[in-house]
Amino acid sequence: MDPNCVFCQIATKQSPADIVFEDDKVIAFKDTHPVAPVHILVIPKEHIKDFYQLAEKQAFAPIHSAIRKLIDENKLMENGYKVEVNGGGAQIVDHLHFHLIGPVARPV
Amino acid sequence: MDPNCVFCQIATKQSPADIVFEDDKVIAFKDTHPVAPVHILVIPKEHIKDFYQLAEKQAFAPIHSAIRKLIDENKLMENGYKVEVNGGGAQIVDHLHFHLIGPVARPV
Repeated sequence: MDPNCVFCQIATKQSPADIVFEDDKVIAFKDTHPVAPVHILVIPKEHIKDFYQLAEKQAFAPIHSAIRKLIDENKLMENGYKVEVNGGGAQIVDHLHFHLIGPVARPV
Repeated sequence: MDPNCVFCQIATKQSPADIVFEDDKVIAFKDTHPVAPVHILVIPKEHIKDFYQLAEKQAFAPIHSAIRKLIDENKLMENGYKVEVNGGGAQIVDHLHFHLIGPVARPV
């Protein structure tokens, strides 16, 4: 855990968040600036910096499993969704986070 | 392979595409309607329908590895990128495809 990381602080319950899913490896919470009715951030509890670092940590399976559950819960298969990860200069918080956004009618 | 799938046709070289990466499991090619200077579609050669079906096939590791190589080749770590997958009603071609898009300065 990185004590200066705002997402580590959420993962360890030191900062509040509207948590919608949690297991031993993953936590998911509502984005505070949603761009759609469903806008959830899905993050590993471990401080993995970014998408680029993900493979070495083999942390994708539990993240993917959480996203699938959230797709079902929010009925996004019918309504359309996108899963998005920003990286490099486009990433603001340096703790890997997947955006699950929906409904999304139009691709890209 | 699904003979009616346009991405299977690209993976088997029956249809043309501007291919930028290929290994035994993955092929990547330029999007024909790019939304940014770099807009690459990264797909499994196997006909996996969508992001939801991905886990069962355990096909993420080679896709991720390809995306990492393309991030490096296109210098997207400095310039910013996003990786995006559309699903459900927002997915047009029913063959899993990850969009790698950059430069992207602003998240989501």
